[in-house]
Amino acid sequence: MRPWKTRSRSTILNHGPYLTVENHTVELPDGRVISEWPWVITPDYVNVVAVTERDEFLCFRQVKYGVEGASLVPVGGYIEPDEEPLDAAKRELLEETGYEAPDWIDLGSYRVCRNRGFAMAQFYLAREARSVTEPDADDLEEQELLRLSRSGVEAALEAAEFKVLPWATVVALALHHTRERGPDASKE
Amino acid sequence: MRPWKTRSRSTILNHGPYLTVENHTVELPDGRVISEWPWVITPDYVNVVAVTERDEFLCFRQVKYGVEGASLVPVGGYIEPDEEPLDAAKRELLEETGYEAPDWIDLGSYRVCRNRGFAMAQFYLAREARSVTEPDADDLEEQELLRLSRSGVEAALEAAEFKVLPWATVVALALHHTRERGPDASKE
Repeated sequence: MRPWKTRSRSTILNHGPYLTVENHTVELPDGRVISEWPWVITPDYVNVVAVTERDEFLCFRQVKYGVEGASLVPVGGYIEPDEEPLDAAKRELLEETGYEAPDWIDLGSYRVCRNRGFAMAQFYLAREARSVTEPDADDLEEQELLRLSRSGVEAALEAAEFKVLPWATVVALALHHTRERGPDASKE
Repeated sequence: MRPWKTRSRSTILNHGPYLTVENHTVELPDGRVISEWPWVITPDYVNVVAVTERDEFLCFRQVKYGVEGASLVPVGGYIEPDEEPLDAAKRELLEETGYEAPDWIDLGSYRVCRNRGFAMAQFYLAREARSVTEPDADDLEEQELLRLSRSGVEAALEAAEFKVLPWATVVALALHHTRERGPDASKE
């Protein structure tokens, strides 16, 4: 399958570090050209499901501007300029929870929007996490650190209590990665 | 926990049906006020994991402008104005695949971005899907309909071959919903 090509791009809104909007002129594989294709740029980010040595899942209960009511929230934040995604994940885990982990699993990197771009989201599972210091979060939001059991996280996911898309994604991917296989799994 | 309040809002970019950008003046619970908080509006959408009577998972291989290389893609699309999300899901399934399904499971509704908004994504699992007509897709993209086994979908998810965030989410949620429980699951 042939990719779409970007013929030209121009900035139509520069709103500082958190939002830029461009117009792209795009050429389709069959030769058609679409002008004024909007392309949205916001910072790339990481989310981390951190599981402690005691099999507790670390997360927060928090309010966010884009979300109705409080939500369960995994560790996460924007990747700094020139920062590697895994370094951002380790930094956010330490800042937000005071935990470090020796075992990191890459759960993949995903484009947020198929058409408009938005950002890349990179997800991790951190295992055997242990507390090494006090949290040092500078978020604007009030928050409360929780330690949930696996079955508690499963129930919360099923009830859509992780209310923001990447949070549900990283939790579902982490549960899938660490699931107990059924008795027939070895046959697949 | 107390919500943030929107004191005022003004449109700073109107790019037609697919993108509007607003500036919000936001009041935090502690009284601080943030002006020029960017808020991005794109159409709400649905994604559907459709499983046939023969336990085949319907999806496509497709290129999208925002994605590097071809991706696996579940059924989905924008919700029309005044359309219910479930109706949009049924419409997209029929248009894109020619299938209908008698059994629909709501997998939740999610804000795409905690801070900027972007859209709401609504996910479904459609079971016992069967072919009733020819597909009638009007997408700009070339695409190929695939029927994958459950283990094939699991392997593709683990390899991050669903390359866009909501696609990985709906697949992970559907696999979680339909998973085989391990021998100890009843104890949880």
